[in-house]
Amino acid sequence: MAATIIDSTVLGDIFSAADMREIFSDRQRTQFYLDIEAALARVQARMGIIPQEACEEIVSHCTVDRIDFDRLKIQTERIGYPILGVVQQLVGFCRDGLGEWCHWGATTQDITDTATIMQIRAALDLVERDLNAIAAALADLARRYRDTPMAARSNLQQAVPITFGYKAAVLLAGFQRHLERLRELKPRVLVGEFGGAAGNLSSLDGRGLEVQAALCAELGLGQPDIAWHTMRDRIAEVGCFLGLVCGTAGKIAMDVKLMMQTEVEEAFEPFHEGRGSSSTMPQKRNPISSAYIHGIASSVRYHVAALLDANIADHERSTGPWQIEWISLPEIFCLTSGALAQTRHLVSGLQINEAGMRRNLDITGGLIVSEAVMMGLGPALGRQRAHDVVYDICREVIATGRPFLDLLAENPEINKHKTREELARLVDPANYLGQCGEMVDRVLARQKR
Amino acid sequence: MAATIIDSTVLGDIFSAADMREIFSDRQRTQFYLDIEAALARVQARMGIIPQEACEEIVSHCTVDRIDFDRLKIQTERIGYPILGVVQQLVGFCRDGLGEWCHWGATTQDITDTATIMQIRAALDLVERDLNAIAAALADLARRYRDTPMAARSNLQQAVPITFGYKAAVLLAGFQRHLERLRELKPRVLVGEFGGAAGNLSSLDGRGLEVQAALCAELGLGQPDIAWHTMRDRIAEVGCFLGLVCGTAGKIAMDVKLMMQTEVEEAFEPFHEGRGSSSTMPQKRNPISSAYIHGIASSVRYHVAALLDANIADHERSTGPWQIEWISLPEIFCLTSGALAQTRHLVSGLQINEAGMRRNLDITGGLIVSEAVMMGLGPALGRQRAHDVVYDICREVIATGRPFLDLLAENPEINKHKTREELARLVDPANYLGQCGEMVDRVLARQKR
Amino acid sequence: MAATIIDSTVLGDIFSAADMREIFSDRQRTQFYLDIEAALARVQARMGIIPQEACEEIVSHCTVDRIDFDRLKIQTERIGYPILGVVQQLVGFCRDGLGEWCHWGATTQDITDTATIMQIRAALDLVERDLNAIAAALADLARRYRDTPMAARSNLQQAVPITFGYKAAVLLAGFQRHLERLRELKPRVLVGEFGGAAGNLSSLDGRGLEVQAALCAELGLGQPDIAWHTMRDRIAEVGCFLGLVCGTAGKIAMDVKLMMQTEVEEAFEPFHEGRGSSSTMPQKRNPISSAYIHGIASSVRYHVAALLDANIADHERSTGPWQIEWISLPEIFCLTSGALAQTRHLVSGLQINEAGMRRNLDITGGLIVSEAVMMGLGPALGRQRAHDVVYDICREVIATGRPFLDLLAENPEINKHKTREELARLVDPANYLGQCGEMVDRVLARQKR
Amino acid sequence: MAATIIDSTVLGDIFSAADMREIFSDRQRTQFYLDIEAALARVQARMGIIPQEACEEIVSHCTVDRIDFDRLKIQTERIGYPILGVVQQLVGFCRDGLGEWCHWGATTQDITDTATIMQIRAALDLVERDLNAIAAALADLARRYRDTPMAARSNLQQAVPITFGYKAAVLLAGFQRHLERLRELKPRVLVGEFGGAAGNLSSLDGRGLEVQAALCAELGLGQPDIAWHTMRDRIAEVGCFLGLVCGTAGKIAMDVKLMMQTEVEEAFEPFHEGRGSSSTMPQKRNPISSAYIHGIASSVRYHVAALLDANIADHERSTGPWQIEWISLPEIFCLTSGALAQTRHLVSGLQINEAGMRRNLDITGGLIVSEAVMMGLGPALGRQRAHDVVYDICREVIATGRPFLDLLAENPEINKHKTREELARLVDPANYLGQCGEMVDRVLARQKR
Repeated sequence: MAATIIDSTVLGDIFSAADMREIFSDRQRTQFYLDIEAALARVQARMGIIPQEACEEIVSHCTVDRIDFDRLKIQTERIGYPILGVVQQLVGFCRDGLGEWCHWGATTQDITDTATIMQIRAALDLVERDLNAIAAALADLARRYRDTPMAARSNLQQAVPITFGYKAAVLLAGFQRHLERLRELKPRVLVGEFGGAAGNLSSLDGRGLEVQAALCAELGLGQPDIAWHTMRDRIAEVGCFLGLVCGTAGKIAMDVKLMMQTEVEEAFEPFHEGRGSSSTMPQKRNPISSAYIHGIASSVRYHVAALLDANIADHERSTGPWQIEWISLPEIFCLTSGALAQTRHLVSGLQINEAGMRRNLDITGGLIVSEAVMMGLGPALGRQRAHDVVYDICREVIATGRPFLDLLAENPEINKHKTREELARLVDPANYLGQCGEMVDRVLARQKR
Repeated sequence: MAATIIDSTVLGDIFSAADMREIFSDRQRTQFYLDIEAALARVQARMGIIPQEACEEIVSHCTVDRIDFDRLKIQTERIGYPILGVVQQLVGFCRDGLGEWCHWGATTQDITDTATIMQIRAALDLVERDLNAIAAALADLARRYRDTPMAARSNLQQAVPITFGYKAAVLLAGFQRHLERLRELKPRVLVGEFGGAAGNLSSLDGRGLEVQAALCAELGLGQPDIAWHTMRDRIAEVGCFLGLVCGTAGKIAMDVKLMMQTEVEEAFEPFHEGRGSSSTMPQKRNPISSAYIHGIASSVRYHVAALLDANIADHERSTGPWQIEWISLPEIFCLTSGALAQTRHLVSGLQINEAGMRRNLDITGGLIVSEAVMMGLGPALGRQRAHDVVYDICREVIATGRPFLDLLAENPEINKHKTREELARLVDPANYLGQCGEMVDRVLARQKR
Repeated sequence: MAATIIDSTVLGDIFSAADMREIFSDRQRTQFYLDIEAALARVQARMGIIPQEACEEIVSHCTVDRIDFDRLKIQTERIGYPILGVVQQLVGFCRDGLGEWCHWGATTQDITDTATIMQIRAALDLVERDLNAIAAALADLARRYRDTPMAARSNLQQAVPITFGYKAAVLLAGFQRHLERLRELKPRVLVGEFGGAAGNLSSLDGRGLEVQAALCAELGLGQPDIAWHTMRDRIAEVGCFLGLVCGTAGKIAMDVKLMMQTEVEEAFEPFHEGRGSSSTMPQKRNPISSAYIHGIASSVRYHVAALLDANIADHERSTGPWQIEWISLPEIFCLTSGALAQTRHLVSGLQINEAGMRRNLDITGGLIVSEAVMMGLGPALGRQRAHDVVYDICREVIATGRPFLDLLAENPEINKHKTREELARLVDPANYLGQCGEMVDRVLARQKR
Repeated sequence: MAATIIDSTVLGDIFSAADMREIFSDRQRTQFYLDIEAALARVQARMGIIPQEACEEIVSHCTVDRIDFDRLKIQTERIGYPILGVVQQLVGFCRDGLGEWCHWGATTQDITDTATIMQIRAALDLVERDLNAIAAALADLARRYRDTPMAARSNLQQAVPITFGYKAAVLLAGFQRHLERLRELKPRVLVGEFGGAAGNLSSLDGRGLEVQAALCAELGLGQPDIAWHTMRDRIAEVGCFLGLVCGTAGKIAMDVKLMMQTEVEEAFEPFHEGRGSSSTMPQKRNPISSAYIHGIASSVRYHVAALLDANIADHERSTGPWQIEWISLPEIFCLTSGALAQTRHLVSGLQINEAGMRRNLDITGGLIVSEAVMMGLGPALGRQRAHDVVYDICREVIATGRPFLDLLAENPEINKHKTREELARLVDPANYLGQCGEMVDRVLARQKR
């Protein structure tokens, strides 16, 4: 049984998604190796570099079901890398020594790097699917609660009123940026690797770049300008992107767990029978997805740093830094898939307690709109003076517990400018939502494009 | 005297660049605050929100020379943030209470975030300047040494011959990607912040977005779709970019220090009298810039993770995560400036020892072209068989010290296919440079665009 | 003006402490260099290795006031390390060429490493002072509020009642462990370095270990078994220790900022006029120290990883990894000093709102003691059955808003075992404080030792 | 098939050790849960808290083979934590409702934390075994090569001669410190957790601490002073320790891979047929273990930072930070086990090329003992003057290629003090090994204790 939480039978589907794990499994990775060997054979046969007969024979065996993984493990431990073992098995499957033509001109890292890019491509498709789903769910929340007042918190203190739709739109705008980043990085990152031992294609007699171009085309990947065996900025860039994505997921989780607090109760994770229940405290409604997302987002940012670490590669094929990617790349994608699945679950089914939001808006007896009052009095008293007067009254409200409105109306500096009715309007949170609505609309408009 | 190495009198200019430190100094940051307050006053006067007279009075005092920093320190420690102190001083400079109109509708974080973006813009200009200079120097190396043979190393073992120009072009391609990334992120990142207490512009009576648009235009920044006080992906994205850049700088440093080894001596950092000398070992020629770059690149990747950490921001104005940026953003830019200055110095004056490269190519007595031999024998013997035969001969060369060529020529399986002359051509490294030249040209072609 | 927040005129004293910065200043570090050179001269004169006259002359100039820092900067940038420059200046101060005897048998890193240890010793003294002060303040809180009931939160949900003194004692126990760790690491870490170029004392003609022992004794440091120029586990261990300390500070900050929330209001940071005020929201009482501590704790843990990174040192004197320490060690101590100063301020003046704690205990209408009820009913109904019954009633309380006690008393399965009076006792939080008091006493008892 | 490299069929045994993975497997973790439930039942029966019959029934079912993992997965996903599911299954196994008495007074995290400590105990035993084995192997190398000269490298430049035994002893001293650290942390870390919902043992009617003491004793663990559900410094401390250990492993790997370079060839990883071979470069002898160790050490330090991150826990049971440990703790132990297994393999079978070491010592034509010459001339010429004269001669050697000895003997400032014979002795590396031998003996002496 697995030791990591990602591969855990019990906890694996909480911290990662099965379809993402599949992409990074021994099986799928090995299938990608075989896909590349097959593509290489096809391309080289087409170019007359290897016999067509060899190509057909090789391609016919390029299926992972043929691979003996127990033997591959032993081969890999002996050699240090899995490719030669796969090639040896593939050669063994082929009749009449035709297998000798496979892997022609390639080096171990050509195959592993290209397979890594194929994993990244497949994995980014899953990420993109989730980003779109989360964006759609957030757009829905933004639209639905466009005008639902709630307290904004600054430094965990109630600040001024906003709407929940505005809160959702702020998050949505982040996901829109993530999708934009993804569009930008794909063509830069999704390139093949085929260069031979030192990347200069010396083993292909001057036809290497031609083979490389055809191989990349065959695999649907871009062709790099030059070898990148030890220039790992593309891989690290993908890690950075996932770090940014999980950062936003972590921000959502933070807000949801704060809103779920017993003393706040403004929003709840989707409810399922028993979900978030405690073995000893039956009244609780624990944030579960939020806690997982928080933990994952933390882990992910360390993998980002690790992938940056892998950039410090020596010479033409690195001695250790590359192995950092072996560890971190599968994990950062798997963990991200878990964070996104949990986030998707969270935002799609988020339960909003509008009454709770309203109740909390009233907690401060109107102090939450002290800015409104300050701004409303600014033209008459001057901004700084209005600030100071209102600040003192707020302190008095806190000290005495007397209603804000009463103290405002009693203040001679204020009541010579404003009637009690005018002041009452100033202290109603629903009258002080600013341009939440317009901002929601701006973000939703971009969503439609 | 300073405690950090960045601000150290003695070491500061080694680990960072003075022009970058200037951007993040108390002085320049405060000047940016004042620039924003001035721009806000101009915009609001133009829109009739504040009196023109107030605008003129405010603008006339928006110069950092007026600021009493000792007082600002005390104000900041009392309040927790520097903006209110700056505004209070500014208000105090203005005659007739006109200062009351300054900072109208703004919140502390509007000013600090916009100032941060102005710092980032100025800082990215310096980064871009250095990236271009490094790319130009690498292009020069790639061109000059396009055909200079040297040993490629894989796992720190000599692998096959390449050229030094190829090595430089691999690095150059990385910097080309960094410049592309910079072009992409600028419009996304360089946006202003102006939203008031919770970002919804409630204090500006429905004219907030209009003010925001004008303010951003006045400052030459983009307008955001919605407030981003607690959506910090843009800031983290900048950090990620710098992490990628320093990763490549670190890769260069790694290669240079390996090439400078006493046992290798293929390249040297630019020489200055006494540079890299030791107090006890006068014969040494220490890599100095490379060591600094290595140290900086390590620190930078941790700042990347810290900036990602800052994304886990609570509600509308965060309680702690924001402060991570206060620490890390100046440092990551300053350290990057140090890494780039050292890299620029390094690649601009790198001393190449072509004779040393040639000498090392000969160390293995021809084994370095074992792949050439294997590939050359492949058509005759079959790839796997050629591999096995050559592999055995190589082992014999290592064990006996006998010349590779002799053993190849003696081998009956080989000499029935190849004459000694043909084998001699196969074992000359200069005949096995692959497509290094074409690859260099591909990268240089992109450089010209 | 400084670029880093640590050395910032405006913000420096918020994020670090002046006495700590002093230890890591250019001045003090250079004074430590001179202290070591002086000690070395004294020791070597005593042993007859250098003339007594030279010793006296050297020692008489070993004061940092003599150092020309502008010149030192230039020397350092030329050589790459500051020691040779300091030695050259020192030699220059000495009459009659007597300065030639200074730095006898030492290498650059001997001096810098030993100075680093002297910085660490002085810095750990400050840390220890703060740890003791924080522990004392926490002990005071634990004692004073030993029996003050409040809600425990699990997953940010009210769980069961505890006391605030218990909460403080949990934190205190952590600081007690930190002090224990500090006691353990000091003798291992506080050792000198004196080995010459490669640590093997080759330049001292067989008397090196003797000089080393005397030098370490002279400086009040332990003698290492063997050189440690590239075995940096001691330095990283100190970083780890500071990371653990700041982790606990961060935990305190987290709890305080959560308790300060508008909707919770159970504790507040010490109040000073204007402290934590907002430029636009005068009613707010922002957590300020807590936010700083949170930001610092995050940065510190990345410096821990950086210091671990520095362990991957090459051969006998490393090429880059050492420089990581130059950056991180001063910062991790300075940032820790800021975190500890803020924590000390926080816990020493923490304002406890006992009424608020009581009010929150009542929020759930008794559900917070559902465990008490469940446990109380366990013997009669069986643990699982009691759990299920109470769980259902809790759900009903939440759904209907009816009092927990009423629903319990109405339930036939329950009321056949318990009277309403018995149930009323079960639902009073003050009757369900468990062994908070005993646990507080256990921790306080250890404090006295 | 697994997605992580740790659990990979093909690569898992390279990056981790099977016995370590076993400790962190779903199976073993669940068995630890059951061991704790059994111990709790025994203790509580002994104290008369639960019926002896219930205890016997419960204990009889506390074996992991009974657990339905598919069902546990579903239960866990529903509830968010695995404990309740295990308890429910256990209750179900028991006849006559006796299972109701299991888990009495415990909370989910009591069981998971205690199980975590049991995992840590078992895992640290494996770590200790490996540390001892590595120390023994290093001691053997230190002893065997106590007097084998080789070049020390400073900044990757040959500095002065040392012995290989000295190099090994420096490493050994590090492992001795690690073993000391392990001894110190064990009693602090290996404590149980048993506190109920908020740690204050409220559910056990005043007998909680008594049960806790007995339970810890039953499990062979220490009793904590107070609950530590959200004081995670112990867990992070273990992570820090592993980070330090892997740092030293990484240092060894760094040195080995540098010594294995084609141009250096002083030491080699243990050879096995095919090990480290390349699919295209049969002459190569790749460092394999070293590369793995390097990659692992990097990953491990990020897990250290993650575990420190987990310390920022909220209130009495944290909402997300705890989950960081779920991810990182198994991985940091598994990766460490891989690093230690590879290091053990490496140092136990390291092949030393004494001839290569001697050859490299001669590369500089004697410049490597320039310090010896400088020190030898110091008494006559003065230290600084000797430095300057020798430094100039070294430069001339480098520029002209003429023998160091000749230039020394020709120099009038030198030859008036030293004969050619004296100078010849000065330039023989074997005469300038300093106190390598004594230092080796000092470290070996500590090893025996």
